[in-house]
Amino acid sequence: MTKAEALTFQAEFEAELHENIVPFWEKFSLDAEYGGYINCLDRDGTIFDTDKFMWMQGREIWCFSHLYRTIAPRPGWLESARLGADFIRKFGRSENGDYYFSLDRAGKPLVQPYNIFSDCFCAAGLAEYGRVSGEAWAAEEALRLWRRIQDRKSNPKGMWTKQIGENRPQRAMAISMTQLWLSEVYEGLVPEAELEPLVAESARDILTLHMDLERHAVFERVFADGSQPQGMDGRLLSPGHALETLFLLLNAVSRLGVRGESEATRFLPEGWTMARVCEAMLWTIERGWDEEHGGIYYYRDYENRPLDKLESDMKLWWVHVEAMSAFLLAHRITGKPEYEAWFRRIKDWTWGHFRDPEYGEWYGYLDRRGEPALSLKGGKWKGMFHIPRALMYCADIFGQLEKEKI
Amino acid sequence: MTKAEALTFQAEFEAELHENIVPFWEKFSLDAEYGGYINCLDRDGTIFDTDKFMWMQGREIWCFSHLYRTIAPRPGWLESARLGADFIRKFGRSENGDYYFSLDRAGKPLVQPYNIFSDCFCAAGLAEYGRVSGEAWAAEEALRLWRRIQDRKSNPKGMWTKQIGENRPQRAMAISMTQLWLSEVYEGLVPEAELEPLVAESARDILTLHMDLERHAVFERVFADGSQPQGMDGRLLSPGHALETLFLLLNAVSRLGVRGESEATRFLPEGWTMARVCEAMLWTIERGWDEEHGGIYYYRDYENRPLDKLESDMKLWWVHVEAMSAFLLAHRITGKPEYEAWFRRIKDWTWGHFRDPEYGEWYGYLDRRGEPALSLKGGKWKGMFHIPRALMYCADIFGQLEKEKI
Repeated sequence: MTKAEALTFQAEFEAELHENIVPFWEKFSLDAEYGGYINCLDRDGTIFDTDKFMWMQGREIWCFSHLYRTIAPRPGWLESARLGADFIRKFGRSENGDYYFSLDRAGKPLVQPYNIFSDCFCAAGLAEYGRVSGEAWAAEEALRLWRRIQDRKSNPKGMWTKQIGENRPQRAMAISMTQLWLSEVYEGLVPEAELEPLVAESARDILTLHMDLERHAVFERVFADGSQPQGMDGRLLSPGHALETLFLLLNAVSRLGVRGESEATRFLPEGWTMARVCEAMLWTIERGWDEEHGGIYYYRDYENRPLDKLESDMKLWWVHVEAMSAFLLAHRITGKPEYEAWFRRIKDWTWGHFRDPEYGEWYGYLDRRGEPALSLKGGKWKGMFHIPRALMYCADIFGQLEKEKI
Repeated sequence: MTKAEALTFQAEFEAELHENIVPFWEKFSLDAEYGGYINCLDRDGTIFDTDKFMWMQGREIWCFSHLYRTIAPRPGWLESARLGADFIRKFGRSENGDYYFSLDRAGKPLVQPYNIFSDCFCAAGLAEYGRVSGEAWAAEEALRLWRRIQDRKSNPKGMWTKQIGENRPQRAMAISMTQLWLSEVYEGLVPEAELEPLVAESARDILTLHMDLERHAVFERVFADGSQPQGMDGRLLSPGHALETLFLLLNAVSRLGVRGESEATRFLPEGWTMARVCEAMLWTIERGWDEEHGGIYYYRDYENRPLDKLESDMKLWWVHVEAMSAFLLAHRITGKPEYEAWFRRIKDWTWGHFRDPEYGEWYGYLDRRGEPALSLKGGKWKGMFHIPRALMYCADIFGQLEKEKI
């Protein structure tokens, strides 16, 4: 990628963020009446449900706070972050301190705190909000949540665990991935001496347990010793999740290794380099890309046997934006053209299929052919998060590419 | 429908059952090594996973037993039923007597008994198996399960309930529907004096709570007073589920009202007739049929607002076979041509899209256009149940139509 191309991309990504994505959420999601954010928004921004989902509340607090901190200290962004932070402060926590999964519009709890990711995303939101607002309660609550997540992470569902672990002790990759992102969000809030081992731990778990070097795949579910369960669980591939994880892994170790690759490498298990991590992206996309219709499948089976997830061949927005960021970062790290080629291919398909030029923002759920299957712009699982976060990450990487090309 | 047409249909449905459906499960699902049934079967019958899902185990026991009782007392069918019954007898029950959700191939429990429908389908399996085998343990366990389901049904998930009921006390239609089917399966095992009020109770709950006469719709989720929750939950339509429920309701009251419609009507709430129940099928199919590609959607929103379920516009096998049975029964009850027309329309689309002439049995999951999205013939949620049950119900109704036409 030439310097001029990086500049052009950067301008395009920043324009998308500031002219298309952020305005949509500012216009439609702020709940001035009850506080917090409206999550369920139709194609044109119309509200189709007023329940509030805590993953989405926490993520939007993070997003507005992060815009304020890293783009520009606009009072409106801080106000928008405060709207969410005050709401979850008042209503988000259950009696035992864990965060509910959902609330009604006014804040009455609807679904129990069975899901640790409510806590993870509220933690991220409050950490970033505490930083930009200077409000001590937010930073303190973020810190309490951090400790609580560390306590819970080995048994994240607690009493809500339906799987009988002693008979099939599977581990999923999601907590390792989220921890890598949190390690970035919490930089400066938690002592380095505490953060660094967690990054190394996540890197080790992902690279030695979930990544299979012989079979060239990143598996979603493995046993504690890294072997794969028999059957469909053991064969499950989630290309978007694998690429998001590899991106966050490389991003986290890059940040800690501020003085360059050799320093970053010490957060990786023995024998690993950043470039070797990038290679796993190629295995993943080669299995995940739909050669017939384009785009990246949601799920695949390693042996191309049947999947039992109905949505397996759908094309999801977050999969594509995370994949785009991953290949761009891999290109920056390695300089290799194959990563740039994949970045461009994914970027073109993503721009061409997910964007909604008529009503703004992006569709979330396309069918295999790339046509919208659901019309919503926001819902239980889609909010102000993956798209703006990826656009910011990418803009940042384009900036680095420009500097490196000088 | 003329008598000759009914005869032709009956022959076609019976051939489908005996030449296509039953042989597939006999050939591929029987686990001679460990007992029970293999559930996860690819298009050609290849096993793709060996976990055993208790809904499917119970349903297959029911199916083989029912074939034995109602079609012909072939020893092989009884043996096949025994294979499942012995397996769930040994491994199916958790310590508190509730049935696990899934086991591994050898019977080790994998997922806790969080789901009352495991108990419902094992109950049905053991009730029918107890009847045909004469094994006292099976009938006794079926009876114990029946009482236990009655105790649990007002709080079916017990400690596994994530919804905070006091803030949004929704009721789902599934338990009422299942109870109607169980009332048929348990005929003769439970005293009539106990069964009849349950049918009347289910009929009342469905017709007075879930059916909205003003808005012409059968809603999945309502409040205890029959009002609809605000938002997407309250607007949710599941056409297949509504049609299956209306079918089982009409079937149950017909069976109890053996001396004709006026007797059957006394199991319906005041002011209701069988014909009026049939009308709700028309509302349902008019909203549920896909005019562009044909077939019946999985989910719809009453106001055509966004759905948040990714699989909403997919076409599922069970939806179509239950709809087919429902319209055929409505035609028999009312004699009206509009029900026959819908029966034929659904039957043609179903035969044309779900059947797999190459490897036998039917696909379960088509995309909106009617092309297979998943290749599996059996999985966590698809087994030897909806298709053979519907073929048997329909064959039976064709038989009645033939008699009535004399």
